Amino acid sequence: MKANALKKIKDIFKDRCLTDKLSRVQYSYDATQNMFLPDVVVLAENTREVSQLMKIANKYNIPVVPRGWGSGFTGGALNVKGGICLSLEKMDKVVELDLDNMMVWVEAGMVNYDLQEYVKPYGLFFPPDPSSWKFSTIGGNIAENAGGPKAVKYGVMKDWIKGLEIVLADGTIMQTGSKNIKDVAGYDLTSLLVGSEGTLAIITKALLKLYPLPEAKKTIQLAFDDMKKAAAMVNRILLSGVIPVAVEFVDKDAIQTVKNALNADLPRADAILIIEVDGSKSEVEQQTDKIKELSKKEPSIVSFKIAKTKQEEDEIWLARRSISPTLKQIADGKLNEDIVVPRSKLAEMIERLQKISKKYNLPIVNFGHAGDGNIHVNIMYHTDSKKETKNAFKAMNDVFDECIKLGGSITGEHGVGITKQDFLEKQIGKAQLELLKRIKQAFDPNNIINPAKMRL
Amino acid sequence: MKANALKKIKDIFKDRCLTDKLSRVQYSYDATQNMFLPDVVVLAENTREVSQLMKIANKYNIPVVPRGWGSGFTGGALNVKGGICLSLEKMDKVVELDLDNMMVWVEAGMVNYDLQEYVKPYGLFFPPDPSSWKFSTIGGNIAENAGGPKAVKYGVMKDWIKGLEIVLADGTIMQTGSKNIKDVAGYDLTSLLVGSEGTLAIITKALLKLYPLPEAKKTIQLAFDDMKKAAAMVNRILLSGVIPVAVEFVDKDAIQTVKNALNADLPRADAILIIEVDGSKSEVEQQTDKIKELSKKEPSIVSFKIAKTKQEEDEIWLARRSISPTLKQIADGKLNEDIVVPRSKLAEMIERLQKISKKYNLPIVNFGHAGDGNIHVNIMYHTDSKKETKNAFKAMNDVFDECIKLGGSITGEHGVGITKQDFLEKQIGKAQLELLKRIKQAFDPNNIINPAKMRL
Repeated sequence: MKANALKKIKDIFKDRCLTDKLSRVQYSYDATQNMFLPDVVVLAENTREVSQLMKIANKYNIPVVPRGWGSGFTGGALNVKGGICLSLEKMDKVVELDLDNMMVWVEAGMVNYDLQEYVKPYGLFFPPDPSSWKFSTIGGNIAENAGGPKAVKYGVMKDWIKGLEIVLADGTIMQTGSKNIKDVAGYDLTSLLVGSEGTLAIITKALLKLYPLPEAKKTIQLAFDDMKKAAAMVNRILLSGVIPVAVEFVDKDAIQTVKNALNADLPRADAILIIEVDGSKSEVEQQTDKIKELSKKEPSIVSFKIAKTKQEEDEIWLARRSISPTLKQIADGKLNEDIVVPRSKLAEMIERLQKISKKYNLPIVNFGHAGDGNIHVNIMYHTDSKKETKNAFKAMNDVFDECIKLGGSITGEHGVGITKQDFLEKQIGKAQLELLKRIKQAFDPNNIINPAKMRL
Repeated sequence: MKANALKKIKDIFKDRCLTDKLSRVQYSYDATQNMFLPDVVVLAENTREVSQLMKIANKYNIPVVPRGWGSGFTGGALNVKGGICLSLEKMDKVVELDLDNMMVWVEAGMVNYDLQEYVKPYGLFFPPDPSSWKFSTIGGNIAENAGGPKAVKYGVMKDWIKGLEIVLADGTIMQTGSKNIKDVAGYDLTSLLVGSEGTLAIITKALLKLYPLPEAKKTIQLAFDDMKKAAAMVNRILLSGVIPVAVEFVDKDAIQTVKNALNADLPRADAILIIEVDGSKSEVEQQTDKIKELSKKEPSIVSFKIAKTKQEEDEIWLARRSISPTLKQIADGKLNEDIVVPRSKLAEMIERLQKISKKYNLPIVNFGHAGDGNIHVNIMYHTDSKKETKNAFKAMNDVFDECIKLGGSITGEHGVGITKQDFLEKQIGKAQLELLKRIKQAFDPNNIINPAKMRL
């Protein structure tokens, strides 16, 4: 980096401009196993500073990678081409809570969980709650269009973002969207920016919709002797007019893993569904009755359980929550992807995953969000075996190929980032990829924001 | 238009290529009072034809304006710069009904009402139902991101579009989105295209989400002696966790107009709210009880009525539905705009509208969707009075200015089109307008698709 550029950056950020090796290493990794050293780390405190920084970066053609708490699974926050790591961790405050419109303006660096705690006393919550919610930021959640278990009923980030404050590559500060529930003046820039993986502009603030906390909820566990029947059941429930908050599934291998590891009292089954419903007390009652009624008609159900106490609820969720931590008992290596298929193809995809598992002789453990066809695929291998390692990556290739064949997507929640670049073109085609590149150029002509990402 | 270009177009469309004056006049207008003659009208029957057409238009630099049934309120379907009128009216079929995923692929020219009728036997419906639903097409609804009375609970078009088939300016056929409930691979082109007013690409097919028909519904009428209290009540209902399907309001002048015209038995009030709730029978019961309970605590309510029969329901809705047709009794001229403000600013905006009415000595009648701050403003004037006509347009200017000052939008449903171009920059600013232009260029470098629209 040119010395005078660095000097100008230091003038803006003073002691919040970090150039020592230790700091740069601290900001060089995320939840992938990749590591790229930024040339400099800056900790922005307000939008004006971000704007000033972008003007310098744009002038001197220095890559800028925005970053929250670095919890991403696809390398989105990594300075692959060096340059500036722009951390928004200090921009973590609520700017305005608007109870009348049930909306809140927050800074991009605010942690999802902190927001939830902030609005809870007002009887409100922010529905998108990715598993990382205790440490991932709203800005990162927006950049990746994060989901979470509640997506069946409440949707994903893009359904809850009303507007953004952004800084363009040339330093222009701009507000997209508004508090208006309907607003069709101009293109929907807000939706375009959600899920753009921090490549189009720097998101500095966000206007979020909130929702009244439900009065009650209930957890139900259904065990099936046939995965296909479990998947079909999900559709039958939704078609009946019951929209659960969450419909999670755990496959046979995942059940076995948890049984072995925890000595857990889990039903012998091909698949388990865990369903959560919420709403007013009577709504919850009614939804539970409907699911019970539908279950009685389904002969493949080998066990039906409604949690009556908080403890029983926790026990049911334990099976789901324990999978990731117990996977290490199978093997030390894990390739973990978040493919998604149309809900109707869920059972078929699971069958194909089982075939791939046999082909490469590697355990593949699957669980995830049955309500929206989102499967967390875990290919297990021993890292000290070259053959297993090579096969694991080959198997993952096959997984993406089969997923795309079924009309699925290579990513439901985690983004493309730097780790799935090779598969993006396979999914969307060359012409569409070229169009994305032209859109990126419309925002960032010199390609300085996250220049290594998404093959853009 | 060059003769060889026209010849090539005729070769594709044969007798579906219309060049006679009468046909061109038939396709020269929409629901505005504007009229622009296209040079040629083509009636496409499939996507391949659209692609072939675009290649020719792009090569010879001929403007192309896509068109459904021409019901738009802002001139979106008008060939302002002549060229080709591309009618999609013959592409009006269901391509695939996917019950398992509760989705449907339809051609862009399908009329919204026809789709509703098609899916009803399966116990499903498509929630967005703009007032024009009996004659407006899905393609047009998507281009304008249309809303409708049900938007409070069910949202607008963009909430129900999962994917699109589009044809780019250069003839490239492309599919955006997928049946995957979550899909974050690449930028969200689908959302960008929804509401782009037919300026970025030609939409030929759409993948729509469907929803189970509710079991029951109920209509409630609340009359207030204070418009502000009525607006506050809307928020209180929503904060209580009750999300009605529709919350419509009728202001004092609108009540008076309907009373005079129909001799209707309407309460003497400053404002009337009409609320519809839906869901299972018990949900509807519970929501109605909640609204009743909240209403008892509000002293400004002068009348409370729950429809017990279909006839009573119709009577309540009559007040709302009769406003537009009865307005002519006030004056023959009407400027009708669909501004929107944050829900919390609704009462304030109504007050400002009343001031503008006094300033120009013209009646302004307001009604609309209180649940989402969307006001249909009707400025009434006598067309034979030059002074009133001039003042009506001045008043409309003031309306937009005041709306923008309150953080509102110049359009909640109808789009910017050619009629509100002067106000778009006022609302979103010059920098954002420039960005929109660059995005348009990324899709359509020669600016042949709807070249006169949105100052792009």
